[in-house]
Formats: sequence, C-alpha cells, structure tokens
Amino acid sequence: MGYLWEHVSPEIKAVHEKIGWGKRMGFGERPAVLVIDMAKAWTDPYFFMGTDMSVTLKNINKVLAVARQTKPKIPIIFSTMSYDPNLKEHTTVSLKKTSEKRLLLVHGSKWVQIDPVLNQQPDELLLVKKHASCFMFTNLIEILTGAKVDTVIITGCSTTGCVMATAIDSFGYGFHTIVVEEAVNDRDPVSAPYALLNMDTKWADVVSLDETIKYLSKFKG
Amino acid sequence: MGYLWEHVSPEIKAVHEKIGWGKRMGFGERPAVLVIDMAKAWTDPYFFMGTDMSVTLKNINKVLAVARQTKPKIPIIFSTMSYDPNLKEHTTVSLKKTSEKRLLLVHGSKWVQIDPVLNQQPDELLLVKKHASCFMFTNLIEILTGAKVDTVIITGCSTTGCVMATAIDSFGYGFHTIVVEEAVNDRDPVSAPYALLNMDTKWADVVSLDETIKYLSKFKG
Amino acid sequence: MGYLWEHVSPEIKAVHEKIGWGKRMGFGERPAVLVIDMAKAWTDPYFFMGTDMSVTLKNINKVLAVARQTKPKIPIIFSTMSYDPNLKEHTTVSLKKTSEKRLLLVHGSKWVQIDPVLNQQPDELLLVKKHASCFMFTNLIEILTGAKVDTVIITGCSTTGCVMATAIDSFGYGFHTIVVEEAVNDRDPVSAPYALLNMDTKWADVVSLDETIKYLSKFKG
Amino acid sequence: MGYLWEHVSPEIKAVHEKIGWGKRMGFGERPAVLVIDMAKAWTDPYFFMGTDMSVTLKNINKVLAVARQTKPKIPIIFSTMSYDPNLKEHTTVSLKKTSEKRLLLVHGSKWVQIDPVLNQQPDELLLVKKHASCFMFTNLIEILTGAKVDTVIITGCSTTGCVMATAIDSFGYGFHTIVVEEAVNDRDPVSAPYALLNMDTKWADVVSLDETIKYLSKFKG
Repeated sequence: MGYLWEHVSPEIKAVHEKIGWGKRMGFGERPAVLVIDMAKAWTDPYFFMGTDMSVTLKNINKVLAVARQTKPKIPIIFSTMSYDPNLKEHTTVSLKKTSEKRLLLVHGSKWVQIDPVLNQQPDELLLVKKHASCFMFTNLIEILTGAKVDTVIITGCSTTGCVMATAIDSFGYGFHTIVVEEAVNDRDPVSAPYALLNMDTKWADVVSLDETIKYLSKFKG
Repeated sequence: MGYLWEHVSPEIKAVHEKIGWGKRMGFGERPAVLVIDMAKAWTDPYFFMGTDMSVTLKNINKVLAVARQTKPKIPIIFSTMSYDPNLKEHTTVSLKKTSEKRLLLVHGSKWVQIDPVLNQQPDELLLVKKHASCFMFTNLIEILTGAKVDTVIITGCSTTGCVMATAIDSFGYGFHTIVVEEAVNDRDPVSAPYALLNMDTKWADVVSLDETIKYLSKFKG
Repeated sequence: MGYLWEHVSPEIKAVHEKIGWGKRMGFGERPAVLVIDMAKAWTDPYFFMGTDMSVTLKNINKVLAVARQTKPKIPIIFSTMSYDPNLKEHTTVSLKKTSEKRLLLVHGSKWVQIDPVLNQQPDELLLVKKHASCFMFTNLIEILTGAKVDTVIITGCSTTGCVMATAIDSFGYGFHTIVVEEAVNDRDPVSAPYALLNMDTKWADVVSLDETIKYLSKFKG
Repeated sequence: MGYLWEHVSPEIKAVHEKIGWGKRMGFGERPAVLVIDMAKAWTDPYFFMGTDMSVTLKNINKVLAVARQTKPKIPIIFSTMSYDPNLKEHTTVSLKKTSEKRLLLVHGSKWVQIDPVLNQQPDELLLVKKHASCFMFTNLIEILTGAKVDTVIITGCSTTGCVMATAIDSFGYGFHTIVVEEAVNDRDPVSAPYALLNMDTKWADVVSLDETIKYLSKFKG
C-alpha cells in the first residue's frame, strides 16, 4: 500500500495485523466499477464542500479506460446525491446538515452532475442515492445480481464517508470488495488514511491502481 | 467533546466545520440504548482481539443504571457476533478473516457471551448479528419501530467498526443517532478519534456521558 | 368485512381462522396514509394495464379529505413506478415483462403521473419505486421513522401486487398495517379477495373505509 | 402449468396475459434450491397449523435428490421460523397472532425442526427467519452472492405466504426466480392457485417439477 499511509504508524498497523482480519479477499471473476459521488459539488475545489480531486479524477479515468475496453463491457456505475427541493424527505438529515447548503444540492442542480472529465457514457448507470452507502435505498444490489457481478471495485469520494459506507455494505452483501487506493479521496487528508486502514482490516482490500488495472486488463476483448 | 479528541488537530476540525454538516440533531423523545458487542472476545484484554475495556464497561453501566430506572422502561438492546460452526455462511468473510480465529467465535462459544459485568436482564434483547452494523440482517428496525423509538443511543465497541457501521445505518433509517463518547472504545486508539470526528460530522451526535445521563434521567419514574 | 369478500367461501375463511393469526392489530397512535400507484397507467381503463378505478379513486379521496384536515397534518405519501429510458436497470424485470409495454412507463411518461383526481399537494411526498413494495429500494422507512409514524394506512393498487408486497414489508418493519378494503383495487377481481383474505390473516388488518375515516377524524384540528 | 390451476378460469387468466408481464425469465446459470418452512409445525397435519404435505415432501425430495448429485454441489438452503421464548422481539406480530399458539414455536421447539423426511445434510444451511420472506432480516442475499447464484428455485410452504413473500424479494434482488408448482403447498387450497397465478404474472416463473429436475440434471457430475 502506498502514499496515503504515511500518517499511520507501525504500532497502529501492528494492532490491526494482530487480529488476523486483513487477509486478501482478492478479486473475483465478475467485476463492476463504482464511481462514487464524483459530481461537481465534490470535485470543484472552489465549492464549499469540494476538494482538489484532479489526481483522483485522472486515476479514475485510468480505471475507466480499461473498464471501457472490456468485452463484454463490465458494469460501470456512477453515483451522486441530490435532495428533493423542499428538503422534506430526510427529517433527521435536516437536523444534522445546514439547510442553506443542502439547497444547493437539490435534484437538477449543476452541482450534483457527474464531473464531465469522467465522460460518463450512456450505458453507464447513474444511481441517485440519498445516503452515504451506494446500497442504501437504491437498487444497486439488483443491478449487481442481474449482471452476475461478484467483485465491486470502488473509486470516488469521500474515503471516510460514502466510500467507507459502501464498502461496509458491499462486504456484508457478499461481494469481493476492492477499494482503489489512488482513486479515492477525501477533503480531510488526516482521517482518510485511518479510514483506509480500517476498511483494509475489516471490509475491503485496499489495492493499488496498478494492481486494479492489471486485473481489469484480463477482461479486454 | 472530550478526552478522545486529543489526536485531532484544529486544522482538521476546521475542515469538518466548514461544510456545515456537524449540527446537533439532539435527542428525540423516545430513546433506546444499544450496547454493541461487549462480549468477552472484545472485553477480555488477554484474548487476541480484546482490549482493556474496564473504563468503558464502567461508563456503559452508568448509562444502563439510569436506563433501567426509566418508567416505562426504555428498550435496552445488546448485540454480539457469532458464526455457524462450519464457517459456511459467510463466503467473503472467510476470505478476509483468518478461520482459526473465527472458529473461537462460533455460536455457543464463551467468547461471544455478553460480559457479565453488564448484568444483562431478561427483558433486554440480544441481537446475534453477522456483520458490523446492528441493523444488517437483523430485525433491529422492527424492534425499534415496534417500540416507537426515535432516538438510538449507541455504546460499546468498536468505535471504528461496529459502532460506526451502526451509526451510519441508524442515521439513514431516520433515527436521532447518539454516540456516547466515553462509552465506546476501540483496540486502535489512534483511528478511534477520527472515526468519532467523522461520525459527528456526518451521522451522529457524539455526546458526553454526562449529557446522556442527564437526558435519560428525564424518563425516570 | 365487505363487498370484496363474496368470492370467499365460509370453508376457506374457517381454514384461516383456525390458525389464530387474523387478530386485530388495531390502529396505533401516529398514522401515515400511503396511496400506491394511482397513476394514469393504472387508473385509465383504456390503457392496456389500467382498470376502472372510479370508485376506488372516490374512496381514496374520502380518506385524503380527512387526512388533509389533521393537525399537525399526518404524512400522506404517494407512489408511482417508472423505468430508466433504456430499461437497463432491471435485468430480470426485462426478462419477465414485455419491453414494448414497459417503454410506455419510463421516467417522465404521462402514464406514470399521479391521477389528477387525487389532487396531490406539494407537501405530500412522491416515492418513485422500482418494485412492488413501497419499501423496496426507497427511503420510505426513513420517512416514516423521521415522522415518528407507527401506523401505515394502505390505499391504492394493485391489491394482489404492490398493495400486498407493501403490506408484507410494513408488517415486517413493525408497523400497525392497515389495508382499507374499499380503497384498494385490482384488475383481477377474482384474485383480489383472496389476497385480502391472506393479508388479513398474516400481515395487515383489512378494515372498512368507515372505520378508517372514523379513526383519522380523531386527529382533526 | 398443471393441476393446481383448476380453480382459475380462462377469463381471469386472460386478464393476466393481457398486460404482458408473465414472460418466461427462464433458469439462469447458477442455481440454488430453497426449501421454505418444511418444519413439523407446517408438515404435521395433526398440528393446528399443519397440513398434509406428504406429496409435497415427496416432490421436494425429488428436487433434492438431483440437487445433491450436482458437482460442485449447488447450495441447498432450508428455512424455518422460531420465536424468542418471551415473544418480545415482535411487538406487532404479537398483536396479530395468538400468543398461546406462537409459544409452541419458540427457539428449540420440536415443531420448528425441519421434517426429517427431507434428510437435511450438514452442508445445507438453515435460515432461522423471523418473517415470511427468506430474505427479510436474514443474510440470504449474502449467501447467494457469495455462492455466485443467479437462480433461486423455491420449494416449500406456504404458497400464499412465505413462498410468495420470498418470490417477491428474490425477483426484486435480481434473481431468476422459479417456483416449483408441485413442490409448494398451502393449507388453503383455494387461495393457493391465485397466489401462483399472481407470482407467475409478476415475480416468478411457476414451472413444473419435471422441468426443474431436467434443468438441475445438467449440473450433475
């Protein structure tokens, strides 16, 4: 594992290794690629909740480049979040998150559109999710079962939030769950490596971009 | 927030405050108390995956002491995890976690019994869960709906794992979600405060033991 | 129970009574009203999948008239179904249901709009669901928890399909589940009474329109 | 379709055909067999909720005989239902179903044991479910995903209850969903064919025992 781990001390890594949970699940045989919340609200560093995602976007595009050459083409699924214009759907969320900022993210807002740099294709589904996990209150499980997927490759943001919540559910639902280290990101650079460490221990293999691309290349036509 | 936050720098706290997500949901009107995975495997520091939880156990007992005096008595729900003796139920888990260690945690093992220090009462339900979240593949939502609960007060372990996964789901399901800072714990003392910070920003109010006890005292007979 | 039961013989009713499952749950204290799939595709008798719902619409409007006078106004939630324009989201559904007909029901189609006779108000949420149950892959549970609902009053169509699937889930999630006999309907008049009988035995109280209106009237301002 | 359909008139069958929903999904490539609730409480005709299931048991055994000869052996999963001894877990169920009868079905009761005629093998999992659907509050989805299953073959009882609820969820989760007509049964012989008709229209292929055995024979070693 690479550059994001600089914050994690050897002592803490040893705590995780001791319990015998961080084995490699490995990739399975039928992958899908998830691109989580790479919409302008998250990728525009000048927006209040955005971050500089230029490297992450470039790395996701490397994953997508290979995934788009697979034959038959493996499922590529984007997610975004948006709210009903009156913010009535989520009573509890309305208590936790400032309404004036949530109103910038209602259905149809430019901020919830996928970053055009990723060049989403017409056959690549868009999940409009309501919470952190891509599985919660969406039919992602149906999409994956229908496509006979056994391996969920996770990219996008945020590492400590939607990426982690999705990894937890993906593992629980029985998928080989892979988080691509250089293709996820977070506005909080200090929490992120600890989230990766915990995912790698408990719910996902955190693997390198190179290893992911090498794996996906096997499915090229 | 208190003593667990010493690791989090002001700069990182500022990153979280900027996005306007860490508002106080507050407590609601119908609480339940969750005690997550305080079984011997987690609370015995001499067991391979255990930690010294003596302070945590004492603090949970303070919460329970008040909760047990409420009239009508509010729901108190314990969870533990255990596996089928052949480890056949969880194909993917078997890849991620060492089997020889999981075999110590099969149904009926002494390690999966709730720590007797907590003195679980006959009317306090036990969820035997299969994954990190107390909601995943259990009927916790049914139990809470049936008891007309609107507030889930979370105690137990581990902060970076089952506590966080449960908080994510509890918030998604629409509950006022409260994590009692001094009544949760983790074998990894460095990741834990970042997990608390992220929960407090996104999914839960991290509140003090004192504030929790004060709130619960209102329901005393 | 009333007019829909003419098809059910006393012998069959006796089979259901014998097992002791058809007790009255009764109404709870915090109701919400669901209006399932009363969109033009279902209510226009000249559309291929529509039925004459004129009486049902009138009866639902009687329920809504009282529900709209409650103070504070109880949640009223409509549902409809619609598909992505390429029918790619549901691999298995595409195998089961004729595509040329499903294409009439894509997002934005006039057929998936709620029947204007019901005069849906701006504060009455619309669930766009993907399957029979209003709970499946929607955040209905979050909406109900957030509104502290304990009683789900079901109206709409179809009795043997979306009404029944919703009743099964509502009961499983722990709600007092009420099906208003004269306010549900089905294109198949023979299966419908058996579906009502089975719901009444297992998952819901099938109650009369009069009893429902009397109950809701207690919440008037 | 065969003998169970005698109650359904051609007029009603025509109503179902008109809407174009009853197409054959067909079997997929990776089957699993579910045996729902064939425990003594359901199969002993002298028990209050039992029925004469002798033919059904024989037919399920025909399915199992082939399934047990497949190489690699396909997943065979049994389910039963049982309650906590104090009946505290299910507030709403306690309102709907008579307690004195539910007390006969608590954990460990002989009535909730799988009928020995089916000779359940050690490698055949047992789901202890809490509600009608085998998916609700169980990890069946994880088991199926982990085994890379795409086809759920349903046998057992009751047709109008647990079989139908399981078929609804199985279809929603994206599985080829197959109900084996002669291998399901119900204490209510009149409702059952209408439940089969509705499943066949909406959520499952209702297929004959012969066709199922022919399909499974392809996986023999």
